[in-house]
Amino acid sequence: MTATVDFYFDFSSPYGYFAADRIEPLAAKHGRTVTWRPVLLGAIFKVSGGQPLPSIPLKGPYSLRDIPRSAAYYGLPYRQPTRFPVATLSAVRAYYWAEARDPARAVSLAKAILSGYFQRDCDISDAKAIVAIGEECGFEAAAMEAGIADPEVKERVKRETDAAIARGVFGSPYLIIDGEPFWGMDRFDQADRWLETGGW
Amino acid sequence: MTATVDFYFDFSSPYGYFAADRIEPLAAKHGRTVTWRPVLLGAIFKVSGGQPLPSIPLKGPYSLRDIPRSAAYYGLPYRQPTRFPVATLSAVRAYYWAEARDPARAVSLAKAILSGYFQRDCDISDAKAIVAIGEECGFEAAAMEAGIADPEVKERVKRETDAAIARGVFGSPYLIIDGEPFWGMDRFDQADRWLETGGW
Repeated sequence: MTATVDFYFDFSSPYGYFAADRIEPLAAKHGRTVTWRPVLLGAIFKVSGGQPLPSIPLKGPYSLRDIPRSAAYYGLPYRQPTRFPVATLSAVRAYYWAEARDPARAVSLAKAILSGYFQRDCDISDAKAIVAIGEECGFEAAAMEAGIADPEVKERVKRETDAAIARGVFGSPYLIIDGEPFWGMDRFDQADRWLETGGW
Repeated sequence: MTATVDFYFDFSSPYGYFAADRIEPLAAKHGRTVTWRPVLLGAIFKVSGGQPLPSIPLKGPYSLRDIPRSAAYYGLPYRQPTRFPVATLSAVRAYYWAEARDPARAVSLAKAILSGYFQRDCDISDAKAIVAIGEECGFEAAAMEAGIADPEVKERVKRETDAAIARGVFGSPYLIIDGEPFWGMDRFDQADRWLETGGW
């Protein structure tokens, strides 16, 4: 059994988008697989007291410089979404619905939602936009639409978010590797060393 | 005239301590000098709504793992101070008093205060401890003691903190290079590239 890298992120998080591009190569380098875990940062912030970046004094204006600069640094296309951040409940539900059917294709869906939001300015708060992205990934539109509204899927999303909080997740991206937490795209270097050495 | 790297930090900030070890080589690599600007993060937090790390739910416990792990990653000795964070008013006053007399030696004082706190568990909130560190750096004890209590020095510290807020500084470490802000030890890579390329 391969130990996994647990990868928590919010679909509305630019740093989560950057991390989604790097997480599979990082894990593969060390013979690990990735468990993708989209969460609702808004629900987590109710516990942690966190706030969406743009609304924080001083840090908000800074983030609007840091995000595009970081995208350039990582060599990733980035377009500031018109609405930012947005509610990602439909996106997260679609992900867990898809994961139960086809985990590999669910990862493609997650990446497509992130690039839709951060490259093409799709309104990913809209379930219709998510279903359209799902179709491009090979999911049947009517089935995904029903999945997003399914009470069992809703319950699953709630459980995943609660579990993330219980594990201490408070931001995006957030990795847990053999119990060790790494917050932020800027901790990928430390995660890499941890995976290499098995600790510190 | 050499353009400077403006280096803002709080004496009670572990990440500021890490950055203080790396800032001079980073600037020198690009033919720059460093302007050391200790500030009072507590005063800044009143404007930014920030909080000391240990008191933040989820993020606080995380930071107690991230700090020693980061120290090991950067190859720096680190000992978690018994009291953390502490008030650094005396330390900051001593710095600006010293800077007006001997800027190079003031930098040595800043480094010695940081290593005193993060390596030897000195109580740097105590003016007596600061004066003792100052003596080791070649400053006359009675003169520094008077300097820490000098209303002009107090006013200078207030001006520097207000100026930092006006420039958007909200954390430690925080670099400003030709007007571009970089928050965090983990943005030194981006600052390095910025200095190399003159932008992005």
